[in-house]
Amino acid sequence: MKISRYKKELDYSYALGATLTWELLKYRPESVIRIYVSPSLKESAATERLFACCGELGIGVVSGEKAFNILSPKENCFVIGEFKKTEQRIGEGRHIVLVNPSDAGNLGTIARTAAGFGLENIAVVRPAVDFYDPRTIRASMGAAFHVNVEYFDSIEDYRARFPQKRLYAFMLTASVSIHDTEIREPFSLVFGNEAAGLPDEYAEFCRSVIIPHSKGIDSLNLPIAASIGMYEFTKNDFRL
Amino acid sequence: MKISRYKKELDYSYALGATLTWELLKYRPESVIRIYVSPSLKESAATERLFACCGELGIGVVSGEKAFNILSPKENCFVIGEFKKTEQRIGEGRHIVLVNPSDAGNLGTIARTAAGFGLENIAVVRPAVDFYDPRTIRASMGAAFHVNVEYFDSIEDYRARFPQKRLYAFMLTASVSIHDTEIREPFSLVFGNEAAGLPDEYAEFCRSVIIPHSKGIDSLNLPIAASIGMYEFTKNDFRL
Repeated sequence: MKISRYKKELDYSYALGATLTWELLKYRPESVIRIYVSPSLKESAATERLFACCGELGIGVVSGEKAFNILSPKENCFVIGEFKKTEQRIGEGRHIVLVNPSDAGNLGTIARTAAGFGLENIAVVRPAVDFYDPRTIRASMGAAFHVNVEYFDSIEDYRARFPQKRLYAFMLTASVSIHDTEIREPFSLVFGNEAAGLPDEYAEFCRSVIIPHSKGIDSLNLPIAASIGMYEFTKNDFRL
Repeated sequence: MKISRYKKELDYSYALGATLTWELLKYRPESVIRIYVSPSLKESAATERLFACCGELGIGVVSGEKAFNILSPKENCFVIGEFKKTEQRIGEGRHIVLVNPSDAGNLGTIARTAAGFGLENIAVVRPAVDFYDPRTIRASMGAAFHVNVEYFDSIEDYRARFPQKRLYAFMLTASVSIHDTEIREPFSLVFGNEAAGLPDEYAEFCRSVIIPHSKGIDSLNLPIAASIGMYEFTKNDFRL
């Protein structure tokens, strides 16, 4: 059994840590290849439950330091879930569209907020960071296992598949504030790259929206802007 | 001249990269000790401007690899600003209160959003991560140089200094939604630690507030929750 550091080209990836591995077992049991357990993992009721769960699902448990030395040498990690990557397709309804996101942690953080606001369909326009990077999975706190993510080669490909969507593009050059934007369903919230934002042409086929802020900063951080957008567009669904 | 990797105990810190160093020169010129420039830095109009600015301000420029090897060995960084840490005091008005934040990047991201929404006074309750950690400065994108941050040993110390504030504590156990919270000035928005949140007792001396979300996630990421809170509480100030 060969254990490889994660690379985009592999058809499997890793959930690093017990919490993420539980989320993997809960939402994607059919994709689990095996579970690695560190010899340093203490016996406990939680450990017993993990073994029992793997037993019931017919998932092999491998004990040993090797996987941890290779996959998470610096971290406080005692359980790793190895899983098959699966190609996903997003469905109808509301979408998040991320154009050229470049940071794995940001992508995971956005997936976490999206799951929190019921926006489980995420389109990613290439070139873009890998959704199955263990750093994305980690930052998502497991939300990566219960959102659908589909990659598109271009925004045109996305629009051709979903011609009926109302696209809202978050842009610093927009003249309509998020506070005054009329929300029409089914909406897609479109966000650009961390450094570059969205190209100006997006204003031609999207309603452009700005989150107004002071001149003290050039822009909001991408996951922050995306999260404020998701919060504002879904707030009527999440009243107590 | 000794160059040390950053440690909390030092009375100076570093802005890594040209963008951050420009923010440092703009907002805290009096605290700059010197600027390090890599021999790999290309001559350009921007480089000329940097040298001219340092000349005008009487700031020494040191050329050489050494600082870069020690302070930022892996990064694409050609300019470093070394600066004296200064003790700050927050003033009156609106505050952000961060109780036991533990992640440098999160603290910087929150400072960036706070600067964006005009909330330039940040109280941090110990134990807490170091605001002058270069990773905090980096994540703030320079906002660290134009917000005021003051550390308190306890929330009691903070309350004793600012007895007139209306405290809003963001808690998963709150029964009032952010959408229905009446905002009274001058407010302080209080957020807990990444993993633990705020202790239940905070509900006794704060109005507790929740950002409602789906059961798909346990909680929002700290900088996301803090940013949504800041956005919602200041939105009337940032209409176009």
